[in-house]
Amino acid sequence: MSHGKQFTLYAHRTAVNGYKVAIVLSELGLEYEMIYLDFDKKEHKAPEFVKYNPNGRIPALVDHANNDFVLWESNAILLYLVHRYDKGHNISAFTDADKALQDQWLFFQASGQGPYYGQWAWFVSAPEKIPLAIERYKKETERVLSVLDTVLTGQKWLVGDKMTIADISFIPWNDLAFHRILGPDYPLGETFPAMFKWHTAMMSHPAVKTNMEKRAELLKSA
Amino acid sequence: MSHGKQFTLYAHRTAVNGYKVAIVLSELGLEYEMIYLDFDKKEHKAPEFVKYNPNGRIPALVDHANNDFVLWESNAILLYLVHRYDKGHNISAFTDADKALQDQWLFFQASGQGPYYGQWAWFVSAPEKIPLAIERYKKETERVLSVLDTVLTGQKWLVGDKMTIADISFIPWNDLAFHRILGPDYPLGETFPAMFKWHTAMMSHPAVKTNMEKRAELLKSA
Repeated sequence: MSHGKQFTLYAHRTAVNGYKVAIVLSELGLEYEMIYLDFDKKEHKAPEFVKYNPNGRIPALVDHANNDFVLWESNAILLYLVHRYDKGHNISAFTDADKALQDQWLFFQASGQGPYYGQWAWFVSAPEKIPLAIERYKKETERVLSVLDTVLTGQKWLVGDKMTIADISFIPWNDLAFHRILGPDYPLGETFPAMFKWHTAMMSHPAVKTNMEKRAELLKSA
Repeated sequence: MSHGKQFTLYAHRTAVNGYKVAIVLSELGLEYEMIYLDFDKKEHKAPEFVKYNPNGRIPALVDHANNDFVLWESNAILLYLVHRYDKGHNISAFTDADKALQDQWLFFQASGQGPYYGQWAWFVSAPEKIPLAIERYKKETERVLSVLDTVLTGQKWLVGDKMTIADISFIPWNDLAFHRILGPDYPLGETFPAMFKWHTAMMSHPAVKTNMEKRAELLKSA
């Protein structure tokens, strides 16, 4: 790799799932080059990328220190990274029980949060305005946030007593929900106090802050 | 537990995600009692169940041989079961690389297959008929099947050289897609030959066959 860094991360300037991986790479102090695919040019469906990810979606990660091992699906990448590069378990579960719970929350993020928030985004810019669909996915967004809020009322983090990849995985889509799906006037702190406190605490982490600010900048110029 | 079996599996008579777990428990020769929640009576949102799964969805598993350990999210449950009860790796990946790929396919199933097929089912019985939405999710179903078909043209199984939980996880939703989303007249074998061969091979496995036939029976009486 001409960039000389350990990882190549195929992502997109503003698509949220790439930022999950960027945050975790940053948290672990790993060096990576982010390559932004241009969706308008269909670069994510081009043979050069589909050879890495037959699903034609971002992110995909190449680990040049592991024989150019290629992996896609953002949460599978998070698990790979902590398994291999977080031996001290600074941002990952340690016991078998906590690992199972970490999986549980990662799958809830992947199946419950991402797809529903994502369908809202799709229908909002769909060729036809369908209030039933937009309303459905806004309600699902609030439902997901209420599940998180209920659980986080009794505990500070989703798994164990520290921030793990389970918590981190929710950041980028929740950030999008607060800015777009619910909007700046939504009473987040009053409606979901524990969830909002948790999210706000994570946003002040340097690795989170830097990456999410970078996305916000790129969003402005999009 | 009065039923005396090792596991209690909270599921639903016909909802597909419970069958994933049932198949894997059967493959591993583990004894379980399936409890069918009645969605019409909102049993999945009742306190007795939400104490197990704050997300109010099926499945949830209780392992009575592990201090009544509770887990939800079907694919997290599959990983828990093979980690703990498939020491011979009969239906699970063995190497670190294969485990990462197994995670990758499980997350693709959870984020790419389940939610899209599920949205089709929702819009088909929605209060308002929306062709744009129904068409969108039918197309996404075909897209997911084409990704699987492309990969399975070059290899027999998604990970390594045997059927693993990665493959199994796709069975119940694909079965639903063939019967309902695409329908019996769809030329599956011609359009997605490698995918169809893979699915058909799995359907003849005793643990798969028994559970999927049980679902088909319950569907008839639903």
